[in-house]
Amino acid sequence: MNIKEEEEIKREFQLERVILFSDAVFAIIITIMVLEIKLPEGLRHAGSEKIREAFLELIPKLLGYITAFFFVGMFWAKHLKLFSYLKDYTTTLIVYNLVFLFFISLFPFAVSIMTGTLSPSNAIGLMVYFIVIGLSMLSQTLLAGYLVRHAHEICYYPAEIEKNLQWKAQRVNYVSLPILFAYLSACLYYGVKPELY
Amino acid sequence: MNIKEEEEIKREFQLERVILFSDAVFAIIITIMVLEIKLPEGLRHAGSEKIREAFLELIPKLLGYITAFFFVGMFWAKHLKLFSYLKDYTTTLIVYNLVFLFFISLFPFAVSIMTGTLSPSNAIGLMVYFIVIGLSMLSQTLLAGYLVRHAHEICYYPAEIEKNLQWKAQRVNYVSLPILFAYLSACLYYGVKPELY
Amino acid sequence: MNIKEEEEIKREFQLERVILFSDAVFAIIITIMVLEIKLPEGLRHAGSEKIREAFLELIPKLLGYITAFFFVGMFWAKHLKLFSYLKDYTTTLIVYNLVFLFFISLFPFAVSIMTGTLSPSNAIGLMVYFIVIGLSMLSQTLLAGYLVRHAHEICYYPAEIEKNLQWKAQRVNYVSLPILFAYLSACLYYGVKPELY
Amino acid sequence: MNIKEEEEIKREFQLERVILFSDAVFAIIITIMVLEIKLPEGLRHAGSEKIREAFLELIPKLLGYITAFFFVGMFWAKHLKLFSYLKDYTTTLIVYNLVFLFFISLFPFAVSIMTGTLSPSNAIGLMVYFIVIGLSMLSQTLLAGYLVRHAHEICYYPAEIEKNLQWKAQRVNYVSLPILFAYLSACLYYGVKPELY
Repeated sequence: MNIKEEEEIKREFQLERVILFSDAVFAIIITIMVLEIKLPEGLRHAGSEKIREAFLELIPKLLGYITAFFFVGMFWAKHLKLFSYLKDYTTTLIVYNLVFLFFISLFPFAVSIMTGTLSPSNAIGLMVYFIVIGLSMLSQTLLAGYLVRHAHEICYYPAEIEKNLQWKAQRVNYVSLPILFAYLSACLYYGVKPELY
Repeated sequence: MNIKEEEEIKREFQLERVILFSDAVFAIIITIMVLEIKLPEGLRHAGSEKIREAFLELIPKLLGYITAFFFVGMFWAKHLKLFSYLKDYTTTLIVYNLVFLFFISLFPFAVSIMTGTLSPSNAIGLMVYFIVIGLSMLSQTLLAGYLVRHAHEICYYPAEIEKNLQWKAQRVNYVSLPILFAYLSACLYYGVKPELY
Repeated sequence: MNIKEEEEIKREFQLERVILFSDAVFAIIITIMVLEIKLPEGLRHAGSEKIREAFLELIPKLLGYITAFFFVGMFWAKHLKLFSYLKDYTTTLIVYNLVFLFFISLFPFAVSIMTGTLSPSNAIGLMVYFIVIGLSMLSQTLLAGYLVRHAHEICYYPAEIEKNLQWKAQRVNYVSLPILFAYLSACLYYGVKPELY
Repeated sequence: MNIKEEEEIKREFQLERVILFSDAVFAIIITIMVLEIKLPEGLRHAGSEKIREAFLELIPKLLGYITAFFFVGMFWAKHLKLFSYLKDYTTTLIVYNLVFLFFISLFPFAVSIMTGTLSPSNAIGLMVYFIVIGLSMLSQTLLAGYLVRHAHEICYYPAEIEKNLQWKAQRVNYVSLPILFAYLSACLYYGVKPELY
């Protein structure tokens, strides 16, 4: 193995570290949410009726977990696809990636807020959940945009990545972001007067 | 290194990401269950008698953890074996894998339900536990079935994988699934009238 | 790349999966213990005196965490050394490894028991902690023993591994195990009559 | 593949294990802190006013999490950079690394202390947080210093690492450490009399 090959392998391993670190964060986020779904203590000697009620209380938590599992799974699958184009990394990429992982890491918080407060008269938890989804999408778009802009330095096949990602990145910027901002404004507006719900 | 080799290495690394992500989920699931087994707070100044009682209360949790550790370990060992045949992945495979990991991720929930409610007059927690085991097996069988059907595209030695897995996949479909459905029906039937227990 | 090389790489990757899965379990165990060390809720509006008391209550937990962090770290470093000899794995090795990881995974439980119940009149938590350390050592010795016995099939340099590990494995079997059994018997004996303490 | 190449690959994999284990610890630490941020139980049937108050209570926890996420992320990025120089490891390096990871693992504890006790009249939690940051920096400097001192044995391009790290390591030793010690002394001094705040 000559020096140049060795350096290339080393650089690839550094990129793998960034990727596997992201995967570990995804894996932890996707699984620790399950810790939220549990029965209250002290049911061992309770009657069947009380246990059934406790189960019914779990259903929204279980549904919240299912949706969050598949959202985070979907974000992970997109991250897998996105990073498959990379051959190198930059410090800026790591910062974008950490910001993206930060918003992903808010999922357990958002799900617990949503399932803990959701009721016909109170949608604030649902708002928080959608805001976290929106910010995760936004930061993933920024990450994709960074890749497109620096495709010639850090990606295999820069031409292909532009074809595959640029339209998507722009579509998101021009379509989703206005929707997100409209949505956030609406949230804030109604969040101030939740008695309207 | 020529382009074709580089692409092959990249594709292999993508598959490794899918696999190591699954491993991380398995590792988290298999270990966070242990967080359930703990003594109540404030025992430092309690008498020996009270501490002994608190220990006795832990025994079902410990037993539940032991069984779940080895069930999840067994599922992981099968996943290790199954994915050793793969040389490539598809989006559908990722979806099957995520569904499988989703059911595995319900283990901490199922164990905590089981050990928190099990009593001679109440087997609903045990049912939930068996349902989670059943659904994990079912989704693993679906994953194996997908591999067998697409062995020519994504596996090394398609002939071998058919020989090793097809019979098993079919056996599970024709034998285990009817048993599982019978079991689930029985669960639902008795779950509606738990006072029969 | 010819078929034989490809197979070898695949087999090596399978072994890496086993190892990285073990590492993930170690990493989770070593870090989730820190979740135990926290102040009770609702101290924000408490007086300085009460906060200082709450801090003093944390000291045994912090000490317990420090010892456990370095015990688990030491077990991980030995696992790193042990598995550096391997070139292949068997199903039996996976079982031994899972059993070892199971006992390692009891550390958070043992530490929380120890720091939650330790007092001059009650050493039962300390016993549980030492039992978990003892069983982890024992299962690691069994793993090392398995490697020594099957060095010719699954290890690089079988001669070297015998030289480096055999004596250690035997020393442990002939020295530590009798001590462990004596210790366990003593624990059980005094455990039955903790009022002697 | 000849014996020498095989050995080199094996040694590299051992180093990768050390690195990926560290990454897993970082990933767990950076994400489990989010479990702290949750609303109290039983808000589903509470009024909007009470829910809003519970949200306001979360703001310091959320801010604490944000700062800690980016501190741990920054430590991870430095670890990524630092270990990119390595081609081999020693037992001493593993010990330095474990000590560093130990202080990183105190972040969830420190953040929970800070956000749980911070008030205009009580800065003890903030002190604990800064002490943990200081000790993490100190142990990372020790790790960097070890690399610089042993660059000829365990690093690629020893000349480069000296140029890049030595000054930083010394700057930290001669500038940050005195500040840290002054700070710690001040903390202890005021910690003894927190009524001065």
